[in-house]
Amino acid sequence: MVPLLLEIPLERHSEVPLYRQITNHLVRMIESGSLVGGTRLPGTRELAAELGVSRTTAKLAYDLLEGEGYIDIRERRGTFVATRFSRRPVSKERGKLPFDMASGVPSPELVPWEKLSALSRKVFGRYGHAVLEAAPVPGLPALRQALVRHAATRGIPARWENVFVTSGVQQGLFISFQALVSRGVKTVWVEDLTYPDVLSMSCSAGLKTKAVPLDERGIIDSCGGLGCSDALYLIPSFQNPTGRTISHEGRKAILEIAARRGFWIIEDDAYGELRYGEQSVPALRALESAERVIYLGSFSQLLFPGLRQGYALVPEEMAEDFREALSHSAGAVSSLVQYLVSGFLEEGCLEPCLERARAAMSVRMRALAEGLREALNCLVFEVPQGGIYLWVTMPAVSDESLEQRAAEAGVSVLSGRRFSFCREKTSSVRLSISRLGGPFIKEATTRLASAWGKGL
Amino acid sequence: MVPLLLEIPLERHSEVPLYRQITNHLVRMIESGSLVGGTRLPGTRELAAELGVSRTTAKLAYDLLEGEGYIDIRERRGTFVATRFSRRPVSKERGKLPFDMASGVPSPELVPWEKLSALSRKVFGRYGHAVLEAAPVPGLPALRQALVRHAATRGIPARWENVFVTSGVQQGLFISFQALVSRGVKTVWVEDLTYPDVLSMSCSAGLKTKAVPLDERGIIDSCGGLGCSDALYLIPSFQNPTGRTISHEGRKAILEIAARRGFWIIEDDAYGELRYGEQSVPALRALESAERVIYLGSFSQLLFPGLRQGYALVPEEMAEDFREALSHSAGAVSSLVQYLVSGFLEEGCLEPCLERARAAMSVRMRALAEGLREALNCLVFEVPQGGIYLWVTMPAVSDESLEQRAAEAGVSVLSGRRFSFCREKTSSVRLSISRLGGPFIKEATTRLASAWGKGL
Repeated sequence: MVPLLLEIPLERHSEVPLYRQITNHLVRMIESGSLVGGTRLPGTRELAAELGVSRTTAKLAYDLLEGEGYIDIRERRGTFVATRFSRRPVSKERGKLPFDMASGVPSPELVPWEKLSALSRKVFGRYGHAVLEAAPVPGLPALRQALVRHAATRGIPARWENVFVTSGVQQGLFISFQALVSRGVKTVWVEDLTYPDVLSMSCSAGLKTKAVPLDERGIIDSCGGLGCSDALYLIPSFQNPTGRTISHEGRKAILEIAARRGFWIIEDDAYGELRYGEQSVPALRALESAERVIYLGSFSQLLFPGLRQGYALVPEEMAEDFREALSHSAGAVSSLVQYLVSGFLEEGCLEPCLERARAAMSVRMRALAEGLREALNCLVFEVPQGGIYLWVTMPAVSDESLEQRAAEAGVSVLSGRRFSFCREKTSSVRLSISRLGGPFIKEATTRLASAWGKGL
Repeated sequence: MVPLLLEIPLERHSEVPLYRQITNHLVRMIESGSLVGGTRLPGTRELAAELGVSRTTAKLAYDLLEGEGYIDIRERRGTFVATRFSRRPVSKERGKLPFDMASGVPSPELVPWEKLSALSRKVFGRYGHAVLEAAPVPGLPALRQALVRHAATRGIPARWENVFVTSGVQQGLFISFQALVSRGVKTVWVEDLTYPDVLSMSCSAGLKTKAVPLDERGIIDSCGGLGCSDALYLIPSFQNPTGRTISHEGRKAILEIAARRGFWIIEDDAYGELRYGEQSVPALRALESAERVIYLGSFSQLLFPGLRQGYALVPEEMAEDFREALSHSAGAVSSLVQYLVSGFLEEGCLEPCLERARAAMSVRMRALAEGLREALNCLVFEVPQGGIYLWVTMPAVSDESLEQRAAEAGVSVLSGRRFSFCREKTSSVRLSISRLGGPFIKEATTRLASAWGKGL
């Protein structure tokens, strides 16, 4: 092991002697954990040379440190930070349960990492150093064009100049809020039961948040009260947490009111491409002509969440605000990531991967629904035609108790109140099928049925 | 070429006939550029099947489109979007000059892309799908520990729990502003002559911006007027744009006042590791004991800007605010990028790369300074001991004229006013040696000297 070369700030004219300054600084570094037990330090000769002090000074400093137990000087082997300062172990995820129906993360077998690995070799081979050069703020033109072509298969018209590559749907949402604020929007309306982070994000952007009822009629009725200083955030397809989908007619109605009353819509389509049933409802963005919709998409949610790559299709009128907000926060997404996703789309890898994910989710959702229905006829739920969430209600039982009992049976689920606008009690929990491969779904279902059945 | 499968939203109960709906939607997609000239469309049989309409309807729609010149139906070859809708070429960077002394981007030969390419193979091989799983918001523990070890070599003590991986120094700065706002900071003070984006970023975070004079005495004197609702943003080493470095004593004085008056300091150390002279000044963060400094570091500026990876060492007291701001904006940095940088550090690749960059910059800076000095004795400049910028003043000549004359000679440089707090005229320009390899520096220097010499 090569000894660590250290820059230690010294003050030549200080009243504190140099050997004391060295000792004090090393004590700070060891106590803070910057230098951990076992780290090899330079010998007194190297230390003296590095710091421009005499060897006596260096030796004095080390002697003091050794006397106080901070370092071990081992004859002929070197000088080491004392082992009692060994690295604290990184804490493991606590209380992780064997069956994870809480997380929205895809199960490993669906993640196309071999393909990405091959692609990374390819893009470095083809583009060399350019892969590490900064991309334009809105993203690489080639990727934005590929995203427009992909959106076209869903019937969504877009100009590639108005496409922005973002670090996941999350950054797309954050930047949307910033852009909306700069256009005078004051309030963002969310469904009551929604993705919980949206509340803290809108708040930190300086927006007020209000809730619309979750059912379709409720949303449409509320829209009549919105005006041009409002925005409406929707997950219209296979919603989080309820799995619900707004109908084609419902979408038309919402768009019509938005165009008339002049409010903006943020369409979070994180799950829209994961349709496995017959029910095909086009995206709001594909239905509108008034350009009121910011569309947020991502393949990351389904295939590779850790890549952190999403995209936003932005109305022409708002593109400049979006660009500014992006350029004043984090700037462009990693070029390497953009080259990889661009290659992934251009080589036609997305569709087969999505097909595999759709097939897997369809099988899992059916197994879950059938299993629960057979074992427990008191559960109320509607089986969605896509996505990864099943929203399950057990009338007159609290969500906390459902979550708790599931956990005792080794299954993590999320209580409905976590998604509620006012953190209100519900009798529902969200079950995710994203993380559990086929055979585990069956076991988890059996455990849930037995955990919840007991209490009746 | 496989024909594109299209989802086209149809309304079965509309008064607009189905074939017209199809035509209208395709016209929108073609006119917006979503479907470009030459794209192969499905045949009428496939289209009819995909949309659930009769083949007659599909044929009627296509006939209409063909009649209006939107598509070409070629016997036995297929249906294509008309070539007059061919993709508009991506506009080239306009007015790019042959000698780039404006950009801070490293020259290709210094970018270790082969190493990153090899590492990407390695990390996928070792971690598989985990490389694509989302990292914790502050970053992968292994990377944060490696960053602490790296900071230790510069004499900076830090706990890895207070290290945050960010998308470049830029996001680090943005998140710092957010965290400071949440702690009641109202005003950020910047050097008058600084990185221009800082002004728009602080403004979009809701902070007021004020300027301190650029010289060391001026900064120290101003600090006496700052209080606990202020923050001071500094680039203390090899500053952008002036290349200036604050002395050891100056740093101590600033830290002492900050501790006494309770303001925060953001230390942007983007260039600090690129020291090639004798002058070694420790980072503010290494000198302080009061924990008032947010330290922003990055290797990206020097080696791989497009990876977008930086880090922040945050005072214990502010770590939670930082975590929140990060989690409510873009979330964690791409896991793949984090694995790569982590591997890069762990395999000891950084130090040799930095050495190479330091040696190259040292040679370039000397060549530039000597060339200018020999040819033009009216130029005023101080040669920095590190970094990539030379700040050149020609008394009584306007910066715009200097920039303009350089451009006419094929060298892009940036006028001083671009970095001025009030966009005031100066007689200075910033010359960057980052982008130009050795032989080009000489030629660029000759051109500059001749362009500026003429006007005398």
